[in-house]
Amino acid sequence: MRLPDIQANRPEVLINLTRVGVTGVKKLVEVARKGERPIILISTFDIFVDLPPDRKGANLSRNFEAIDEVLEEAISSPVYDIEELCGVIAQNILNRHEYASRAEIKMKSEYIIKRKTPTTNVGCQEVVDIFAGAITTRSDSETRKTVGVEVVGMTTCPCVQEIMREKAQDEMKKLDISPEKIKSFLGKVPMATHNQRGRGFISVEVYDSYEVRLERLMDIIESSMSSQIYELLKRSDETFIVETAHRNPRFVEDCVRIMAQKVVKEFKDLPDDSLVTIRQTNEESIHQHNAFAERIATLGELRSELSV
Amino acid sequence: MRLPDIQANRPEVLINLTRVGVTGVKKLVEVARKGERPIILISTFDIFVDLPPDRKGANLSRNFEAIDEVLEEAISSPVYDIEELCGVIAQNILNRHEYASRAEIKMKSEYIIKRKTPTTNVGCQEVVDIFAGAITTRSDSETRKTVGVEVVGMTTCPCVQEIMREKAQDEMKKLDISPEKIKSFLGKVPMATHNQRGRGFISVEVYDSYEVRLERLMDIIESSMSSQIYELLKRSDETFIVETAHRNPRFVEDCVRIMAQKVVKEFKDLPDDSLVTIRQTNEESIHQHNAFAERIATLGELRSELSV
Amino acid sequence: MRLPDIQANRPEVLINLTRVGVTGVKKLVEVARKGERPIILISTFDIFVDLPPDRKGANLSRNFEAIDEVLEEAISSPVYDIEELCGVIAQNILNRHEYASRAEIKMKSEYIIKRKTPTTNVGCQEVVDIFAGAITTRSDSETRKTVGVEVVGMTTCPCVQEIMREKAQDEMKKLDISPEKIKSFLGKVPMATHNQRGRGFISVEVYDSYEVRLERLMDIIESSMSSQIYELLKRSDETFIVETAHRNPRFVEDCVRIMAQKVVKEFKDLPDDSLVTIRQTNEESIHQHNAFAERIATLGELRSELSV
Amino acid sequence: MRLPDIQANRPEVLINLTRVGVTGVKKLVEVARKGERPIILISTFDIFVDLPPDRKGANLSRNFEAIDEVLEEAISSPVYDIEELCGVIAQNILNRHEYASRAEIKMKSEYIIKRKTPTTNVGCQEVVDIFAGAITTRSDSETRKTVGVEVVGMTTCPCVQEIMREKAQDEMKKLDISPEKIKSFLGKVPMATHNQRGRGFISVEVYDSYEVRLERLMDIIESSMSSQIYELLKRSDETFIVETAHRNPRFVEDCVRIMAQKVVKEFKDLPDDSLVTIRQTNEESIHQHNAFAERIATLGELRSELSV
Repeated sequence: MRLPDIQANRPEVLINLTRVGVTGVKKLVEVARKGERPIILISTFDIFVDLPPDRKGANLSRNFEAIDEVLEEAISSPVYDIEELCGVIAQNILNRHEYASRAEIKMKSEYIIKRKTPTTNVGCQEVVDIFAGAITTRSDSETRKTVGVEVVGMTTCPCVQEIMREKAQDEMKKLDISPEKIKSFLGKVPMATHNQRGRGFISVEVYDSYEVRLERLMDIIESSMSSQIYELLKRSDETFIVETAHRNPRFVEDCVRIMAQKVVKEFKDLPDDSLVTIRQTNEESIHQHNAFAERIATLGELRSELSV
Repeated sequence: MRLPDIQANRPEVLINLTRVGVTGVKKLVEVARKGERPIILISTFDIFVDLPPDRKGANLSRNFEAIDEVLEEAISSPVYDIEELCGVIAQNILNRHEYASRAEIKMKSEYIIKRKTPTTNVGCQEVVDIFAGAITTRSDSETRKTVGVEVVGMTTCPCVQEIMREKAQDEMKKLDISPEKIKSFLGKVPMATHNQRGRGFISVEVYDSYEVRLERLMDIIESSMSSQIYELLKRSDETFIVETAHRNPRFVEDCVRIMAQKVVKEFKDLPDDSLVTIRQTNEESIHQHNAFAERIATLGELRSELSV
Repeated sequence: MRLPDIQANRPEVLINLTRVGVTGVKKLVEVARKGERPIILISTFDIFVDLPPDRKGANLSRNFEAIDEVLEEAISSPVYDIEELCGVIAQNILNRHEYASRAEIKMKSEYIIKRKTPTTNVGCQEVVDIFAGAITTRSDSETRKTVGVEVVGMTTCPCVQEIMREKAQDEMKKLDISPEKIKSFLGKVPMATHNQRGRGFISVEVYDSYEVRLERLMDIIESSMSSQIYELLKRSDETFIVETAHRNPRFVEDCVRIMAQKVVKEFKDLPDDSLVTIRQTNEESIHQHNAFAERIATLGELRSELSV
Repeated sequence: MRLPDIQANRPEVLINLTRVGVTGVKKLVEVARKGERPIILISTFDIFVDLPPDRKGANLSRNFEAIDEVLEEAISSPVYDIEELCGVIAQNILNRHEYASRAEIKMKSEYIIKRKTPTTNVGCQEVVDIFAGAITTRSDSETRKTVGVEVVGMTTCPCVQEIMREKAQDEMKKLDISPEKIKSFLGKVPMATHNQRGRGFISVEVYDSYEVRLERLMDIIESSMSSQIYELLKRSDETFIVETAHRNPRFVEDCVRIMAQKVVKEFKDLPDDSLVTIRQTNEESIHQHNAFAERIATLGELRSELSV
């Protein structure tokens, strides 16, 4: 039996569509790496093309053929970054949808990293969320790729800590402790404040073969909060983390600004028009709602504000 | 004790922030309506201002004073739409953050509507998700407001149905049933295909006092899918829904285009630069992933494509 | 056309079913209260009956007729608790499914409570999750009802605080500050530790007309954590909350035990066989995972352990 | 500095705790398999012990040492099932908490399986949720282990299909088509009905070294719905799936009963007291809510009802 291709028909309403495709597609992704074991991920993909007004539907099964072909190759290929992987899939998809002028792909995955606890030096695992994307168009020879990471860390509030510090100072004064001793004590023992899980996020637009290592983005995010956190903490590690966090109290605003400064310093070779999104969300321990700060800007804008 | 205002300090890194605020704030919202009982909602708000480079933090508690003041007034005021409510809150917030140049508010809520089952005419309730937002800036006298709705309905696949129809035709031909009878039968009994929950979404940008009734958006979304659905269905209602849906097979692409056409027809008085987002997601019964189509355009663009 | 009742057929596999029904049913619930404005909720219901082996299906639409009838009555009735409401719905449902021997209903809802900030005495709103359930059987004249609440509060870690306290003591000793002054200071200024959002939960099984006020359960949960939290906090409120929390450091285990003690003290009239579930989950600020403690016991068991 | 062990203190309220531990712990799990590549999973663990009344807290970091030790060994060991893995972790954890009498572990993971499309025979991937658990006590020499799977498939409604079939019959009668031809046609072309994503779940309690292959549970679940589904479907595959599903219309009740029958047939060597949970949830395309059926029973009870 001949199977009719309804998708190729002329639709009743002649209007362009910005995005047509599939969302929530889960795939096992194996990324080969030079001289290392491959990374294995379960990734969720969203895949879109645009659609001209005179075509009723996109052939969605082609998206799966494209993604499978590229993922199959990635297992045996020498090296792919996840944003490079998305770029190749986007181009493959555009080739298969001859009626489309643009293909877009988004990918999200959990990624386990291994590290050592801060004082007892025991191995432990942390999970981070990694993101990649690519947009390719027929008119533009270059594919725009994006890579991003979200990491959970700890933030402590500078405002309440300063108030607690003044309170400690007052109490010590009442006890006739000398200003020098007060200063010395408060320099050694950080005062209490509320602290909480913070989620830092950075995504960077990448061109050509410029490589943004996920590990560098994670480092920037973690070092911009009050302290990084660990899944395994012995008592001395826990104390270390709490002290570190209380020596670096930071608002959501501070976290975003410090991340911005570090991104500018780190990615010197990325062009000025590379778009950067930096975001911090604190799951406030004193509220049910979250505190939030965000900067969306080109690297050029950030460079200019920081006079770099 | 004097409490220090750490937020007003100069930060270490001098960089603008696009959005600083709170997310996930839940509030009881009571909207007075002319001649009707007030609508009562539990709404989740996100509230942001921008922040200049020389200010360490935004005073986030002011957002709550602003929202509470406006919500308090809304209970006693004659009439507010939810997007109007967001507009007033955004202005109030900008007034309280003298250092900010822009305030943005987003609101999301579940909303229960009452209606009658299609054949047995029994009352039942449906829940829809409603959205509103507002952005106000110091430089622009006008506040940009947005109102949106997401509704769940049913979609049936045209492609498989056409194949099943040809199969039925072939089987009837083999039984020597005449072409006229085949045509008559297939005109009366719609053939099987896969069908599923679809989620239609429309948001429209609104200016001034132009009113977009939520109920109109809901009607457009529901009538653009293969059939609307109901929480309570007696056997004859259920049959009616299934027949209706099978007489109107539609791809995600069709749903978006039909919504676009109806939006253009319905909102004749909205200006050309009003931004419209139209989206359909089908939770495919034959896949684990979803099918997706979207159009983002100004009303002017849609009008031009439809030659209206 | 006569519509066939397929559900009443004999199934191919003759086996009992423990639960047959519908989940995720959203309804507007209006509960009348003596001398007060009615409470209005959007509640999500799960509704089940059991099914004997010789019946193919349950008539699910009857569940909706039952729930609608009871909800309609509840608007005009003098007073209903939410667990009482569930009990009446369960009985109504059992009446409509003549083939079933047991009906079960669960209900969940967000509930907004109003209160004053701790030092500035300004009104604010908090959202809590409320739960109710009922199970009724043909053989037992009494319906077993359950009512529960989950509230978010703040917990501080006793372990790290003790370590920080010893560290403060050591530093002050090194500065030749006298033991009396050290003791006096540490009695006035609580030392730093990690703190986080905690979620406390209590559910209690209720019989007959015994009334468990939701507000009492909320009070018990909040007062068993290190501090309650508020959506609106001016600077002096925030300091108050942080100080309070640091004066009451508590593990998840402590929270559950304190809740258990208070439940025993509060509900003196509930029978020994009333089942109680008490649970605390801390969203640790120093980890990505949560700390968890739970006690499930009859009131009689708790009374016996506490020698009440 | 000596670090105080606050957890070992006597608590203020002397009450037993049913479960104390950690939830939401994510770990990379590598399970070695005889003669095959290892399975690599990101699994989420919940880990609990009970706590006697006279101990303030459990040492939660020991849970991580236990799980890491076992996971490390699992990479190099010959073969582990996931429920066996949980059993070994539970025993290791009980060994490390000398004050506890019971340890419990739960594990959940996504698992990608590969298979061929039904008519075009192309490779594709499906994701299923897999579950395992173990409970071990000091008094009982045997560890109770559980293994479970949830799979998404497609279900079609028998009730509406029967009505549509009668309608087709009536229409053909009106066209004077002979009863034999009507019967022949309706035997070849299944009539329309609503259909949707269904989620089938089975978990089985396992003893000793009895092995329950995940793949067998998946097969039982998928073959008990109206049709299995695939991520990649060419047009002829799609038609095949829709036809298959419409030839096997099934209520949630039918799915659970057929699964029960197959479980009894498959697991002949499991003892009578092995607990089985079987569940089906249909995401109804004609409603916003879900249809649900469940049987919880021992294998002995199921065997007796089926007279096996």
